[in-house]
Formats: sequence, structure tokens, C-alpha cells
Amino acid sequence: MIIVFTGNGKGKTTAALGQAIRALGQGKRVLTIQFVKGNWETGEGKFFSGFRIPDSRFKLIKAGKGFVKILGDKLPFFEHKKAGQKALKLARVAIESGKWDLIILDEINVAANLKLIKEKEALGIFKKLPKDRVLILTGRNAPKSFIKVADLATEMKEIKHPFQKGRPAQKGIEF
Amino acid sequence: MIIVFTGNGKGKTTAALGQAIRALGQGKRVLTIQFVKGNWETGEGKFFSGFRIPDSRFKLIKAGKGFVKILGDKLPFFEHKKAGQKALKLARVAIESGKWDLIILDEINVAANLKLIKEKEALGIFKKLPKDRVLILTGRNAPKSFIKVADLATEMKEIKHPFQKGRPAQKGIEF
Repeated sequence: MIIVFTGNGKGKTTAALGQAIRALGQGKRVLTIQFVKGNWETGEGKFFSGFRIPDSRFKLIKAGKGFVKILGDKLPFFEHKKAGQKALKLARVAIESGKWDLIILDEINVAANLKLIKEKEALGIFKKLPKDRVLILTGRNAPKSFIKVADLATEMKEIKHPFQKGRPAQKGIEF
Repeated sequence: MIIVFTGNGKGKTTAALGQAIRALGQGKRVLTIQFVKGNWETGEGKFFSGFRIPDSRFKLIKAGKGFVKILGDKLPFFEHKKAGQKALKLARVAIESGKWDLIILDEINVAANLKLIKEKEALGIFKKLPKDRVLILTGRNAPKSFIKVADLATEMKEIKHPFQKGRPAQKGIEF
């Protein structure tokens, strides 16, 4: 089963995180691979280490190199691309291993949209997902081809956002 | 800060759950009050009990009486209404107590839309939220007045859903 969380609104990564918790509660094993930003490094990271969730049940791989071309990013584009390729390779290995019940590819939609990874290559990897496993693809601007192969897709649409008012990111909310 | 997750798509409750995890990871205290359905009873419930998150850090109150008027619900409407009133009272006490950093009122949007609770009464309670605390309101059909007082609002819009194809709810995904 493939799930896509996309759109410009808040809640994509947190919805995936919620799915991870739900799956963990049902005794399932969850892997998250980050393709771009480091959202999962903070509150979530502290949570999983603080409450000692065993590594065999939950694993987080930070394969991304941070935001691309925004927020002062000065990393050459090919470095971001290299990181994206590496993340995709990890995703392929994880999907083929059959070790994980739920695999979250965080911000892979963005990585595909920014051409850090090849859409077609990603689609080929998604196809290898065993039918009883779940794959979640997050990030804004999901390629149409990702939505086409998905069983479930939600657009998180921004109605209102405090950044519009110039409010800074809040600890425990945005990170 | 008031956050609204609404819309007909998947991800509203799981996004709130993700926020809860993020907040818990940052050392904050989280209370969830369920107004309608029992979504949090299953995977999430097992997670929080299985990994021994202390009660002082995370508390879940199931104040709802299940789905209203769908999925074979035969409970008289006034019973649902009574449960809604009780949940709202608990919300008021929790907000006024200042004990919780994050309070999630799960499905309160639905409760307001179905007139289980009075919109105006709820708005009066939201107003009492201390500025450094966070309130999340989830559920489809959020009243416009809730979005108006919110700092952040996301519409989870369904693009694709497996129930459309007659697929049954899956353990670890829908519950």
C-alpha cells in the first residue's frame, strides 16, 4: 500500500509520524528515510531516544543535506543530488529486504520535484514493495506519477499559517 | 496558539498524534480528549501503554461515544450530546488548569458540526488558552469560527482513498 501526503500545508511529516506511532503500537517495524530536511532530528528524535524505542522496531536514517536552495543553503547542487541518490538506494535496499512493515520516505516528493532523484527510478523501486507492506511518501509538489501509483493520497492544503504573520518557528511545534 | 486540522482526507488525527510525539520529545506535557470516535484506542493506545510513557506526560481521555449516526450507531442522539458536553467541560478544566503544554481536542470539529456541542461555548473556552500553550482541533467540517480564531489551519483534502475501491480498514493504518 502506497500513501502520499503532499500539499503546501502543515501536517505532512507529522501525519507520517502519527502513522509510525500507530504502526509501532500494533507491533510493526518502522523505517524512516529523510530525503531533504532534518525535521525528524528534533522533537521526534528526542522522543524515540528518550523513551528507548528499540532500534529493531524504529529506525531513522537522515540521508538529506538540509533544505535545498532556501534558508541560506550554499551547498553545491550536485551534493544534494548525491545525497538524494544515496537515500533512494537505501530505500531500495529497505523495500527489497522485507524487514520493515512501514517505510516512510520523508520529503521524497520534494527530492523528485527538485530533480535530486529520478522519478522513473523511484517508481521502479516503489513497484517492489510487497503487498502487505506500507510505504508513505511525503513532501509538497508530489509528482503526478507518485499519486497515480498511490492507493491513498491526501493534499494538506494551507488555509492559515502563522509564518504569514512573521511569527518564528516554535519549539515542539515546527521542530 | 490554536491549530486546526480539517478536511475530508486522511491525516488529521495522525498529524495531531505526530505533534503530540514532537511535543513529548521536547519535554512537554500532552493531553488528548476524544470528542467522537475511538481512533486513539488502538495502535496509539497500545503504543503509549507499551512504551510506558508516564501519565503525567501524556494522557488520553476517551470522552466520545463512537461514531454518530453512521456505521450502525443506534445510540440516542442526546447520549452523544451528553458525551460531547462532558468532553467540552473536561477541555475547559484542562485549558484553565495550565497543566498541559499541548491539548488535542480530537474530532471536536465534527462534534460542533453535528451540534453535540455549542460552537459559541467552545469558542469561549478556546479564548482561555494561555498564549504559550498549544491547542489542536481536529475533524472534518471545522466551523468557520474555529478557523477564524486559529493561528494555523490545514485542510486535509482527499485526492485518493482505498475505501473508494472497497478495501477494508487495515490494522496499523486506519486503527
